[in-house]
Amino acid sequence: MVATVTGRLYGVGTGPGDPELLTLKAVRAIGEADVLAYFAKAGRAGNGRAIVEGLLKPGMAELPLYYPVTTEIDKDHDEYKRQITAFYDASAAAVAQHLAAGRTVAILSEGDPMFYGSYMHLHVRLADRFPTEVIPGITAMSGCWSLSGLPIVQGDDVLSVLPGTMGEAELSRRLVDTEAAVIMKVGRNLPKIRRALASAGRLGEAIYVERGTMPASRSMRLSEKLDDTAPYFSLVLVPGWSGRA
Amino acid sequence: MVATVTGRLYGVGTGPGDPELLTLKAVRAIGEADVLAYFAKAGRAGNGRAIVEGLLKPGMAELPLYYPVTTEIDKDHDEYKRQITAFYDASAAAVAQHLAAGRTVAILSEGDPMFYGSYMHLHVRLADRFPTEVIPGITAMSGCWSLSGLPIVQGDDVLSVLPGTMGEAELSRRLVDTEAAVIMKVGRNLPKIRRALASAGRLGEAIYVERGTMPASRSMRLSEKLDDTAPYFSLVLVPGWSGRA
Repeated sequence: MVATVTGRLYGVGTGPGDPELLTLKAVRAIGEADVLAYFAKAGRAGNGRAIVEGLLKPGMAELPLYYPVTTEIDKDHDEYKRQITAFYDASAAAVAQHLAAGRTVAILSEGDPMFYGSYMHLHVRLADRFPTEVIPGITAMSGCWSLSGLPIVQGDDVLSVLPGTMGEAELSRRLVDTEAAVIMKVGRNLPKIRRALASAGRLGEAIYVERGTMPASRSMRLSEKLDDTAPYFSLVLVPGWSGRA
Repeated sequence: MVATVTGRLYGVGTGPGDPELLTLKAVRAIGEADVLAYFAKAGRAGNGRAIVEGLLKPGMAELPLYYPVTTEIDKDHDEYKRQITAFYDASAAAVAQHLAAGRTVAILSEGDPMFYGSYMHLHVRLADRFPTEVIPGITAMSGCWSLSGLPIVQGDDVLSVLPGTMGEAELSRRLVDTEAAVIMKVGRNLPKIRRALASAGRLGEAIYVERGTMPASRSMRLSEKLDDTAPYFSLVLVPGWSGRA
């Protein structure tokens, strides 16, 4: 018998949506891969796959990893955790099978893999067993502040990346305690985020960005946005650099 | 006379050092540019220019913007501020002259232009007068956590980006108050950063990364780094994601 050489695992950051924001390294990794793996909601094609669609080779093997349907289970419930852990275990096993057979696998991750990316769940299950390379991607927040032409931090500014899910009082406290902030997971948290910004005295500076770097993206002062409807993939940016020269 | 059409201004993020971490959009912008502008220290070629060297067209016009020699002036001194403001004004004027003559100018910015980048000083002087596009780049911190294979934030984690220049007590306070942290501007601040991490109870988790994504890069647990010498371009990463599943 010949010793099997395992395949290589790439965790590939696809950037926030515009295919031109892929790095040269990401393009190369996808070109080298025998198998393209990506997370997707059941019955959907996957946002990461849509971003790299133009790079796919004819006949390239695909391994879609469909999230279990858990919408009716509370995320803090043990049953949710059990199902999602079993899903990541099974996904890692499916990838490992390809790697063990000598096939190189590129796992797509929207934005930057190690920055809130689902890829991390597979990385911690595979990277100690297979040769692995993580290819960074442009984050959604970076896509948004670039699109808005908004200098976000300079010099000795502190930047705080805050989930919009946190409580209003804590969000307000943190907004007072930082030069610049990015508020993620806006969606239905927008009314609360608006109140926290107002009580922190930062509402006037805040910029709302919707679907940054996607075709339907738009950006405006939050104070000029009159409604409180926002897609989940929207961000609020609070720029620092107050002492600009 | 024919009305002059002005050139286009690109603020181009070059990423942290590895030329393969340029985005496709950055490559296109450099290809479209008539003039390549970049900041550099007097007598030096400029790190940004080194990253894109392989993309330069023969005979492409270059506009190096050499920082004034201010090493003997304290950064808080009015004379420093006067000289650096005059330098940014003159640099913007030099770029504006090309744009007004119809030439497209790409200004390089290491990492991500709007994230602590020198480009911001030109952006605020030019973007309201000329058609401008900011092309995001991979940040140094993202290059470092990818290289280290270190999941940095997940779920509802808070990420704090902190300058190593801040006081020890404040640094420690902020390290207690965040799931994940990136400490920039390490260099000679390393002994203080080490003490702040220890008093915050986070020293054991901290990863030290030197020259991320450059050929001489290395990464290790900070607790295993025995000396306190660090180049300015080093980072300390404190990962979040404690509740990993």
